[in-house]
Amino acid sequence: MTLQDSSTPKIVTAAMVVIGDEILSGRTQDKNVAHVANCLNEVGIQLREVRVIPDIEQEIVDAVNFCRNKYTYVFTSGGIGPTHDDITADSIAAAFDVSIDHHPEAMKILTRHYEVSGIEFNDARKRMARIPDGASLVDNPVSKAPGFRLENVFVMAGVPVIMQAMMQSILPELSGGAKMQSRTIGASMPEGKIAKDLGDLQKKFPTVSMGSYPYFKQGQVGTNLVLRSVEAENLDLAIDELVTILTAQGAKFDLND
Amino acid sequence: MTLQDSSTPKIVTAAMVVIGDEILSGRTQDKNVAHVANCLNEVGIQLREVRVIPDIEQEIVDAVNFCRNKYTYVFTSGGIGPTHDDITADSIAAAFDVSIDHHPEAMKILTRHYEVSGIEFNDARKRMARIPDGASLVDNPVSKAPGFRLENVFVMAGVPVIMQAMMQSILPELSGGAKMQSRTIGASMPEGKIAKDLGDLQKKFPTVSMGSYPYFKQGQVGTNLVLRSVEAENLDLAIDELVTILTAQGAKFDLND
Repeated sequence: MTLQDSSTPKIVTAAMVVIGDEILSGRTQDKNVAHVANCLNEVGIQLREVRVIPDIEQEIVDAVNFCRNKYTYVFTSGGIGPTHDDITADSIAAAFDVSIDHHPEAMKILTRHYEVSGIEFNDARKRMARIPDGASLVDNPVSKAPGFRLENVFVMAGVPVIMQAMMQSILPELSGGAKMQSRTIGASMPEGKIAKDLGDLQKKFPTVSMGSYPYFKQGQVGTNLVLRSVEAENLDLAIDELVTILTAQGAKFDLND
Repeated sequence: MTLQDSSTPKIVTAAMVVIGDEILSGRTQDKNVAHVANCLNEVGIQLREVRVIPDIEQEIVDAVNFCRNKYTYVFTSGGIGPTHDDITADSIAAAFDVSIDHHPEAMKILTRHYEVSGIEFNDARKRMARIPDGASLVDNPVSKAPGFRLENVFVMAGVPVIMQAMMQSILPELSGGAKMQSRTIGASMPEGKIAKDLGDLQKKFPTVSMGSYPYFKQGQVGTNLVLRSVEAENLDLAIDELVTILTAQGAKFDLND
């Protein structure tokens, strides 16, 4: 990894809006947030906020409008299927105050898909071709019904295997910034023991974000120290100092990139 | 389960604010949301929104203030440990515009805990006794450092085993409302086939929330139909009609409570 040049690193941010009664009811454990976060990291985009909201139009409108104004990109998951509770496309149209109709290219993709499958392309399934005016389609190699992009908002399916495929389609469209780099040190000591020195180190390296996460494994207390920065050189310097501190304290530790 | 009386059911709502850079970075998969959602269901409280935000005071203040005004209860997880990045208690004090100091009871609990453990009760660890003015403590049977309640906001640890123990301490304090009841029908058909009838059924039973979740298992396409309501009688009627519809369509299905 080359160092950032001396100018201010370009920070590109994102929010994710998870549209899903099934997550809020506790019925389904979300798996999409971590996947999106990791994909975005790879292209230099920092996920800064996640909202999980119910399948209610006004909630979707409010969350999307807030997030699209605050962050570089917004990714939504859920609510683009054929049933009455799939209201994401209409809600996005409402958020942008644009009209929505059956999209010719989406209709073509779905017509062919159902022809080949020998399944009736009924009115409910045609709902999946409803795309807000001005949006471009996001390819869905798994089940064909497309997602879409409108300005900085990307609308994806909620089913993880489909969402992951859509995310792959989207990644080349994104303009990333400085890549957040991360190093983790797992130390065999309680975080209360390292807390003061870590706080001092944080003050010394304000552009390196330092997180401390205690763990309990087989009766042992330990701490994962996670240092993150878009400035590779400062990150390395901070890690060196932390290693010195831990060594002086007699802690056992592992450094993982 | 007895039926609700004929008056309007009492709806009690909640939001969860997950304070955690480690979730947003994709490093950690959240496990607390589903647990909280399921606990709240048991006592008749509906989780209506989740926000995952970074360890930044203004973000915490904004999210907590928004949510505590909109929902009956707010639950936060994360950021109450001894290190510099644990800023939740101070942020909650800022959100409520109250002072914060070492809480006598929390100091007592932690003093005893560290005495017994033979571990130094240093300044960093004393940070864990900082509690906003007017808050009451939430018991932490796992690692002693307490959470707290301020008005309708409950502040818990982020480590799942500790958060779960705190949630147990909190549940008796909550005043629940009408219990959301849920039935799931797993049907061996694509959701596009049932979509129209399900939409019609939804219109007929507006107080029963009907969700449709496609799944792909061993090459087979199926749909989980989840019907939820605080009105047990209407829920049963809707399920009966759905069973009739599925039977007429020749679908195989399982009904799970």
